[in-house]
Amino acid sequence: MRHLLSTEQLSLENAIQILDTAQEMSAVGEREIKKLPALRGRTVVNLFFEDSTRTRISFEAAAKRLSADVINFSAKGSSVSKGESLKDTAQTLEAMSADAVVIRHWASGAPAQLANSGWIDAAVINAGDGTHAHPTQALLDAFTMRAHWAKLAGTSSVGADLSGMRVIIVGDVLHSRVARSNVWLLRTLGAHVTLVAPPTLLPVGIEHWPCEVSYDLDAALEKGVDAVMMLRVQAERMNASFFPSTREYARRWGFDDSRLAKLDALNLKDTIIMHPGPMNRGLEISSAAADSPRSTVLAQVRNGVSVRMATLYLLLSGEMRQSHAPSPLPSVKDPS
Amino acid sequence: MRHLLSTEQLSLENAIQILDTAQEMSAVGEREIKKLPALRGRTVVNLFFEDSTRTRISFEAAAKRLSADVINFSAKGSSVSKGESLKDTAQTLEAMSADAVVIRHWASGAPAQLANSGWIDAAVINAGDGTHAHPTQALLDAFTMRAHWAKLAGTSSVGADLSGMRVIIVGDVLHSRVARSNVWLLRTLGAHVTLVAPPTLLPVGIEHWPCEVSYDLDAALEKGVDAVMMLRVQAERMNASFFPSTREYARRWGFDDSRLAKLDALNLKDTIIMHPGPMNRGLEISSAAADSPRSTVLAQVRNGVSVRMATLYLLLSGEMRQSHAPSPLPSVKDPS
Amino acid sequence: MRHLLSTEQLSLENAIQILDTAQEMSAVGEREIKKLPALRGRTVVNLFFEDSTRTRISFEAAAKRLSADVINFSAKGSSVSKGESLKDTAQTLEAMSADAVVIRHWASGAPAQLANSGWIDAAVINAGDGTHAHPTQALLDAFTMRAHWAKLAGTSSVGADLSGMRVIIVGDVLHSRVARSNVWLLRTLGAHVTLVAPPTLLPVGIEHWPCEVSYDLDAALEKGVDAVMMLRVQAERMNASFFPSTREYARRWGFDDSRLAKLDALNLKDTIIMHPGPMNRGLEISSAAADSPRSTVLAQVRNGVSVRMATLYLLLSGEMRQSHAPSPLPSVKDPS
Repeated sequence: MRHLLSTEQLSLENAIQILDTAQEMSAVGEREIKKLPALRGRTVVNLFFEDSTRTRISFEAAAKRLSADVINFSAKGSSVSKGESLKDTAQTLEAMSADAVVIRHWASGAPAQLANSGWIDAAVINAGDGTHAHPTQALLDAFTMRAHWAKLAGTSSVGADLSGMRVIIVGDVLHSRVARSNVWLLRTLGAHVTLVAPPTLLPVGIEHWPCEVSYDLDAALEKGVDAVMMLRVQAERMNASFFPSTREYARRWGFDDSRLAKLDALNLKDTIIMHPGPMNRGLEISSAAADSPRSTVLAQVRNGVSVRMATLYLLLSGEMRQSHAPSPLPSVKDPS
Repeated sequence: MRHLLSTEQLSLENAIQILDTAQEMSAVGEREIKKLPALRGRTVVNLFFEDSTRTRISFEAAAKRLSADVINFSAKGSSVSKGESLKDTAQTLEAMSADAVVIRHWASGAPAQLANSGWIDAAVINAGDGTHAHPTQALLDAFTMRAHWAKLAGTSSVGADLSGMRVIIVGDVLHSRVARSNVWLLRTLGAHVTLVAPPTLLPVGIEHWPCEVSYDLDAALEKGVDAVMMLRVQAERMNASFFPSTREYARRWGFDDSRLAKLDALNLKDTIIMHPGPMNRGLEISSAAADSPRSTVLAQVRNGVSVRMATLYLLLSGEMRQSHAPSPLPSVKDPS
Repeated sequence: MRHLLSTEQLSLENAIQILDTAQEMSAVGEREIKKLPALRGRTVVNLFFEDSTRTRISFEAAAKRLSADVINFSAKGSSVSKGESLKDTAQTLEAMSADAVVIRHWASGAPAQLANSGWIDAAVINAGDGTHAHPTQALLDAFTMRAHWAKLAGTSSVGADLSGMRVIIVGDVLHSRVARSNVWLLRTLGAHVTLVAPPTLLPVGIEHWPCEVSYDLDAALEKGVDAVMMLRVQAERMNASFFPSTREYARRWGFDDSRLAKLDALNLKDTIIMHPGPMNRGLEISSAAADSPRSTVLAQVRNGVSVRMATLYLLLSGEMRQSHAPSPLPSVKDPS
């Protein structure tokens, strides 16, 4: 595997390899080891066609902790805005000897085009493309769940996969590359996933995704759950055709204080609450939920750096194993 | 002391420690020593909610000269502009293992909130907040005065404090965090400070500041002065309610050529002229004054890097001493 | 030589020294050598008053490959936009101990002013000023031609100069600092240059340039040519007074598929096609031409990093030889 483009194409073996390596990387930056020389002299380019400070600085921190040089390339004000094609931009970076290109793009498929076109030799890492994929986000989420799963199992080492874990993903699935990448990775890792969303915020073809679908958050919680992942409401993509009001959204699909209490009432004492950030407090998640001991929001950010270090390291060192992606699965169930 | 938030809270002992350390740091980047390995592997985040290229690159140069990794986080176009709270931004940086957060914010008090909230473990350095404080600016100004004071005293080593030095600070005190931070630090260091400003550009409560106040620049000069600090006129904050015209302002409160001549006429041959930059030449300072041998404008910039190296080093190495801030003083005098 | 301001002032000896050094630098970043410690502890400031992501990251990559620290200073949103003078900005950078200032400016002459004013001690490298000069672009173009010329001559080592090479430069000469810098450097290196442009896109005084001028691209090609350099059409500077339409422009002065075929028909099998990028595919160059084996577009980008490494290294190490620039020449020919 030379690139990281989506979790759909990620084999179980590669996913486990990244997660295990991230586990080793998580010691760097803490305690004694501040920095590793692993990628000294390598150049990582952050090629961002969309603003995303959080993701950019997470990759930047990861690359620098491995001693790589980082060059930030924002498409704003660049020749890209003068009409340069992705091809020409890519070849320019290639000619400058970029070893890895971390690409964020508003167009679904742009990272795959970059990787598969033959334009560049650099490793391509998808840092989010349109509504398609955000694989390092899904990997950091899986890393977080794995640590939780291992703790529950009473083992100090993390488990091999997430078999048996019950995950529900709630909110704007339609626009969410995070949801999509999580569904496919969690399937590969053996977890059972339920998507909960308003019918208007589910994509066409959802019946082919390897997960269940529900429209009722309370009912989904009552079936039992180990991790609840709340998606960010992307207000800029929303309008009245999707849902009546933010108040109504919060009431039906937000993780509010009453649902936080419900977890206790259901005796789900080990259930964690996840969010990719940045959060709309009071909309898809209440402050009490975001700041409760169940919340893994900050662990997710922390794990993001480790997972990105692992990804950069494995792709640039050539130590990522060659293995085959899982074959597509038919859908598990129709919307209930 | 774990953070640098204001000079009001800075003890004499800590102020002297920073200035002495800055003195040692001033040799780095010059001559033989280009770089120190002191902060290798540490991450310094420049978190800027307001543009300030000069301050940002001064901190960036300081951090890099100590071998730290620097990540620039401009709030523009980030999730901050999507409504993310300071708390969530802070926790994100914390989770990425930032060792120091250099924060510039349009809201007075934001750095203190960041430091005292428990949101982060990182050292917080205030790089300017609203009209409140800009402590590293005051420290670099004090560093510059100390070097001058030591030279006058004929000692090669710098003096311990600024006892006996007469400083006047001129201009828009109302909007100036630089004036405020200087007044408090100079009081702690033993200097005697006079503020000179139009009555409309003095803040409410000025009588509680440990300094004198005057409305007449020429009269203040005539009393004798060792350092004249001109404040930047922030045109964007000015309107007719503050002063009649820029020409009128320059005439009454600008350091123009006639006042430059006056220093000679008064036989004040060692008096220096300071400005935090960027200067409005022809408004609060004439070009002749800005470029005269009395001007310390460039020395201030140079000393800024040394003072910021010292601050970063002392806070991140844990070598900043624990000591108590001075207790608040009643005002020394009412406006004359 | 302490600065690199234009190719007009560049002696043959210095030009050859830069090109030879760039040849050595071209091995860095490839194969075994990822990085050189040559400029460790030196600070290179990219001072950009105009956006130019490509040029900025080329210099940034070059500086980092030599282990220098890089600080990016974009004039947007800085005190420059608050009216700070170039002088004050320069002195600020000087006071921060910048060792080199790479300056891009919309005003012709700004880099020379910076270098010759005595404001700073740092080496000044012109990264493009107005319609005046872009010397590192001309040097990377010459580097690319030299490699080609050497290959044609069957030598593994590059030749000393470009004697005998026939170069035509096509397009918007009026607004092109690239054309201007190339004409002077190619003259110094012994090549024969013909400019081809619409009469409306030739500058006043063209008769004093050391080159031929033609209005007919096909006629120029038919005379025989070793390198065709297409200039970027800068749409933002164009209007109806310069040429009737983009379609008309492409037909008369674009390197389209028919002209690509013409090179074969003329049996000019070794002629290369150059472009400084970013390209307007379909306007001044067709995609088939841009992607043909004759195209050196990507080699130019790659060579750009080597040439900039050489320039930074020679200026900052003090190893650039002292030699005299060529004396101005009278024009070779009037426009034909």
